[in-house]
Amino acid sequence: MSATAPFSRPSGRAPDELRAIRITRGFTKHAEGSVLVEFGDTRVLCTASVENRAPGFLRGKSEGWVTGEYGMLPRATHTRNDREAARGKQGGRTLEIQRLIGRSLRACVDRRLLGERTITLDCDVLQADGGTRTAAITGAYVALVDAVQGLLSRGDLKRDPVFGAVAAVSVGIYRGVPVLDLDYAEDSDCDTDMNVVMNDGGGFIELQGTAEGHAFRRDELDALTALAEAGIAQLVTLQREALGR
Amino acid sequence: MSATAPFSRPSGRAPDELRAIRITRGFTKHAEGSVLVEFGDTRVLCTASVENRAPGFLRGKSEGWVTGEYGMLPRATHTRNDREAARGKQGGRTLEIQRLIGRSLRACVDRRLLGERTITLDCDVLQADGGTRTAAITGAYVALVDAVQGLLSRGDLKRDPVFGAVAAVSVGIYRGVPVLDLDYAEDSDCDTDMNVVMNDGGGFIELQGTAEGHAFRRDELDALTALAEAGIAQLVTLQREALGR
Amino acid sequence: MSATAPFSRPSGRAPDELRAIRITRGFTKHAEGSVLVEFGDTRVLCTASVENRAPGFLRGKSEGWVTGEYGMLPRATHTRNDREAARGKQGGRTLEIQRLIGRSLRACVDRRLLGERTITLDCDVLQADGGTRTAAITGAYVALVDAVQGLLSRGDLKRDPVFGAVAAVSVGIYRGVPVLDLDYAEDSDCDTDMNVVMNDGGGFIELQGTAEGHAFRRDELDALTALAEAGIAQLVTLQREALGR
Amino acid sequence: MSATAPFSRPSGRAPDELRAIRITRGFTKHAEGSVLVEFGDTRVLCTASVENRAPGFLRGKSEGWVTGEYGMLPRATHTRNDREAARGKQGGRTLEIQRLIGRSLRACVDRRLLGERTITLDCDVLQADGGTRTAAITGAYVALVDAVQGLLSRGDLKRDPVFGAVAAVSVGIYRGVPVLDLDYAEDSDCDTDMNVVMNDGGGFIELQGTAEGHAFRRDELDALTALAEAGIAQLVTLQREALGR
Amino acid sequence: MSATAPFSRPSGRAPDELRAIRITRGFTKHAEGSVLVEFGDTRVLCTASVENRAPGFLRGKSEGWVTGEYGMLPRATHTRNDREAARGKQGGRTLEIQRLIGRSLRACVDRRLLGERTITLDCDVLQADGGTRTAAITGAYVALVDAVQGLLSRGDLKRDPVFGAVAAVSVGIYRGVPVLDLDYAEDSDCDTDMNVVMNDGGGFIELQGTAEGHAFRRDELDALTALAEAGIAQLVTLQREALGR
Amino acid sequence: MSATAPFSRPSGRAPDELRAIRITRGFTKHAEGSVLVEFGDTRVLCTASVENRAPGFLRGKSEGWVTGEYGMLPRATHTRNDREAARGKQGGRTLEIQRLIGRSLRACVDRRLLGERTITLDCDVLQADGGTRTAAITGAYVALVDAVQGLLSRGDLKRDPVFGAVAAVSVGIYRGVPVLDLDYAEDSDCDTDMNVVMNDGGGFIELQGTAEGHAFRRDELDALTALAEAGIAQLVTLQREALGR
Repeated sequence: MSATAPFSRPSGRAPDELRAIRITRGFTKHAEGSVLVEFGDTRVLCTASVENRAPGFLRGKSEGWVTGEYGMLPRATHTRNDREAARGKQGGRTLEIQRLIGRSLRACVDRRLLGERTITLDCDVLQADGGTRTAAITGAYVALVDAVQGLLSRGDLKRDPVFGAVAAVSVGIYRGVPVLDLDYAEDSDCDTDMNVVMNDGGGFIELQGTAEGHAFRRDELDALTALAEAGIAQLVTLQREALGR
Repeated sequence: MSATAPFSRPSGRAPDELRAIRITRGFTKHAEGSVLVEFGDTRVLCTASVENRAPGFLRGKSEGWVTGEYGMLPRATHTRNDREAARGKQGGRTLEIQRLIGRSLRACVDRRLLGERTITLDCDVLQADGGTRTAAITGAYVALVDAVQGLLSRGDLKRDPVFGAVAAVSVGIYRGVPVLDLDYAEDSDCDTDMNVVMNDGGGFIELQGTAEGHAFRRDELDALTALAEAGIAQLVTLQREALGR
Repeated sequence: MSATAPFSRPSGRAPDELRAIRITRGFTKHAEGSVLVEFGDTRVLCTASVENRAPGFLRGKSEGWVTGEYGMLPRATHTRNDREAARGKQGGRTLEIQRLIGRSLRACVDRRLLGERTITLDCDVLQADGGTRTAAITGAYVALVDAVQGLLSRGDLKRDPVFGAVAAVSVGIYRGVPVLDLDYAEDSDCDTDMNVVMNDGGGFIELQGTAEGHAFRRDELDALTALAEAGIAQLVTLQREALGR
Repeated sequence: MSATAPFSRPSGRAPDELRAIRITRGFTKHAEGSVLVEFGDTRVLCTASVENRAPGFLRGKSEGWVTGEYGMLPRATHTRNDREAARGKQGGRTLEIQRLIGRSLRACVDRRLLGERTITLDCDVLQADGGTRTAAITGAYVALVDAVQGLLSRGDLKRDPVFGAVAAVSVGIYRGVPVLDLDYAEDSDCDTDMNVVMNDGGGFIELQGTAEGHAFRRDELDALTALAEAGIAQLVTLQREALGR
Repeated sequence: MSATAPFSRPSGRAPDELRAIRITRGFTKHAEGSVLVEFGDTRVLCTASVENRAPGFLRGKSEGWVTGEYGMLPRATHTRNDREAARGKQGGRTLEIQRLIGRSLRACVDRRLLGERTITLDCDVLQADGGTRTAAITGAYVALVDAVQGLLSRGDLKRDPVFGAVAAVSVGIYRGVPVLDLDYAEDSDCDTDMNVVMNDGGGFIELQGTAEGHAFRRDELDALTALAEAGIAQLVTLQREALGR
Repeated sequence: MSATAPFSRPSGRAPDELRAIRITRGFTKHAEGSVLVEFGDTRVLCTASVENRAPGFLRGKSEGWVTGEYGMLPRATHTRNDREAARGKQGGRTLEIQRLIGRSLRACVDRRLLGERTITLDCDVLQADGGTRTAAITGAYVALVDAVQGLLSRGDLKRDPVFGAVAAVSVGIYRGVPVLDLDYAEDSDCDTDMNVVMNDGGGFIELQGTAEGHAFRRDELDALTALAEAGIAQLVTLQREALGR
């Protein structure tokens, strides 16, 4: 960026501006929770499935489990990716993301109150334009709440095991400027990329920063986390509105 | 069915009545063709991806290839199915369906005119309510046409390699009565299930009938194929309308 | 085919003529049923293995299961195929065929009478010359009867769970003429290929037709199913003779 | 064995007596060499397939390769074994045997004279009664010779790359007595089991001895190798007769 | 921790104290770089292997690649873990760590200067006591330098493609107190766990923080990154000493 | 070797001379037995892990199991080998070796005295210079004894299930001369290679000889087994010394 050229993002957004966020509940009919979450052109279908038993490693411990799975349709992206089912294994990126989704959502669930149940959050990317994992976490939270509300309303649960809210957003340094909620054009051309998961109390649940180009400094880290905090506060409000709370 | 009880389908449809069919083009933005096809509550996303090379077994033969892949989101169904990518292989049913999709669509493509290209038709079921494979074929045809029209309009192809149209529907014998376009409630409780793929000239491309309960007779076969012919004629009309032809 | 040239099949057979069929019981000694079935040069070893427990999904339901597996020796064919065990997975064609074998044979078994048992029909192609799946089904029926007769004669079963007979044959349109029981030379050069499974009462159990070249018409479908009916009637007679009935 | 009871083998054979050996050439029609070898009730189909290129690691070195593959039909044995293709991998025993087959046969081939070709020896056990690997090697040699004779007679090879002969037999200590060519009844109840591969010059190619019960002594090793020498001399004669030499 | 009990770490270390660090070069003889790195009882063997070609996706781009692989011996841990090679796939944790190792080391390599070469950093844990991934990165850097020095001294490289140094350490909040370089006793009982990778200029390369118990606040993040900075400065000094610089 | 040149081994050793052998107990801290065994530059880490249950096929039979697993670090060798965990399966050589390790060690264990326990001997090659499998067996015996002594000293076992000792060595014919304990330089250039496993009573447990070049004669077999006997006697003494017996 030349010294005189004014900074601009490919999308024309302000540095601290989220993309248009849409959260559509009840997107499909079979799942206990089913949410289409859109961060601009990134569209992820998040379903929550309840199973009345805990996984083997928890059997008999009177607590439940929340786990995530992640997938991308082969042509969610600019060029087609091989189907992981056809290749016969999930790639490292997929496993990394689904582990992140599971850890993030477990951070707002009291697993003793959940009882011997498993809730699986399937996050499938229908269309990708950057930030699929943060959109997935943000949407999966809403699907999780819907599934749990169903258990409560049917009397299967007495007390709500979900406490607080969890949302996620990416931040990064694009052409020297810290920006919020990177789209693909920015993501593929930025120096530092950070995914931040926080709760509605402003606490950090996950922080994953990677220097793609040069290493980032402490002051940049501070600027990025501040951007993320503000963005996540907005996302939490949008989650609440979607849930009619 | 007792002799006096009037026959009725769970959906209230007439025996020769299709479900509400919707074909939405341009459902996602990256693929050369992207169609959401709905047969009632069955919703399948069909994308067509063009790659400028033929598969290995055709290299140097101056012809192209059209192939299909099929998947079902884990919670497209009443209860969650394991993710095939996580299990590490595609099941027999999946392989059978994607082989059927590929064969069906190749039946309307002149592969020499296509040149050394591969078109992959990814059919991913977002929500299942019976008849996913026939919906997939019907939708994939529209996605294929869109992808080929793009090649023609950019001058990458001189002549249209797609001839005629291909559509598919299921028929079956439900409580003794031949019916068209089975939904899940019928499919899981019928005696004979048949998937029929035809072209717009009334020719059969694939015919796969299975006696689930008792074996079916020649006259039942005739009634089923007649129902399928009428249904496919309607589907071809709907494909044409969706394509603005 | 020029208009004046008289039609002839590569083998010199009449259009409605089966290949020489041989059914040899007791081909190997360990299996409860062991049949070598030959349709001309196609040779398939079909064994029936009885296990005294039902598969997991039927446990406790007081019924049994009949399933099929299919394989081809690497050099059963003109050129060697990779061994599926070495490649680490069964191909789509194999899975499709073994699912067909299982469904076909279950159509003549009362699974409640079978009790909590599993009968596995292994169909291994020693030499291939077209029609391996239909030969497999025809031979597997005989192996199944032998295995069940053993259970009856030892008193393990009180009543025969096998009702009727099941046999299969391929039909197709070769150079414009409907023909019965295609060999490899015809199979690799025909327009339409159909596999038909029927019972001894003339009922259809499976019908799988594929247009390889041009789509087939209703009258061609009728001619093909008529050929298949006649062929299967002969096969059922040969099965009976082999079983000494 | 009590001191007074006379020793007898389950089959009634003398300790140094082979089972009835049969070598049937041309058992199937597609392979360049196809041999059914029988050691008593053990029956192995050995085919030799010629491919006109060397494997990758030999490309450009002007020499060929001879390799073996081994499989057992699921019901070749007393109780059914899972199909390796269905399990998705070959077991350790299978890999061990096919490595042995390949090494053994390479010991009688001048790979430079073979030129850039691969000969694959597929050994598939149709019926098992002990000694399948040694039968496989003995039969594979005959299939190999047939395949190479075909290359010579068509002028594809100028000089015969096969030198000498290779055969194999098992020996073991059964109830304290060294015996030749163990069948299943002996194999499953012996103290020491040894597989010996030799050439027609009396040289050892492979020697694999395993103490199943107690460790074996030097004098037992000597007795076993002497038995094997005598047995292999007979097998080489039978191979020659089968080849009409 | 009760308000009056003085804080103490299981190892007795001060909160900002590293474990005893040992870096042993030339631990094995075949690799171009071979380093045993010890962080207390955590022992990781890091080898650098140079291959004179770039991976497929870089072919012809005149640049090289640096990649990492990670493994743990089955009994490196308190209880035995299944061998990943036997299970048939690498777990999500393994893939996540080896992706981190690769990204971290690429951050100090000019891949154009490296030329069309691949350097693979294999990090195998011989004994685990917490912090294996950070020890691996710290040791892999030294192995990488040794491998590159070899290329320079043989004249295969003209200019050193390694710039700066990279090291890593874990930090976490143990019983309310931020501590440096967690061992297993702390790691399995802490609230927040963070892995930090930095260069010798104090820039962040990777930052991965996870709230295991309650979410962490901004001031805790600041304390943790400050601890990490100080620890990594010491590790960089130890790397330099090990390299004799 | 020319007739006049005196024979010499690459290492300068006498034909009947072992490499320098080192057996280091307690090499890692978690395993019940942990031994680093060195045969010259070949270094293998052998750990014994005790699990208080028998494998499935022995459940309820009141006996235990001893099994082996084998691996090689990717850069234990001159050039890097792909990691088996990354390739997704263990190769045939690996499976063959680990089956050998298990059989060999079971030969000195009374499995009834062991009770319903499994002892797994993991043999991981840190550095390879020929003879890794024989070093592994020799070291695994010491690790096994350490694990069993632990069970005895804690009172978990009343009587020692280990009887005698087991050790292994390779022998071969190098440039016409029988030699003991081949290193890599000899192994890759020898005519016959034989791995011998014996007990401390001079009995053979396993004997695996392979003619790499020309077939070997009876007198060569005798010379090789004699060399092995002498070598193993020395190894058994070294095992005893390492165990302080």
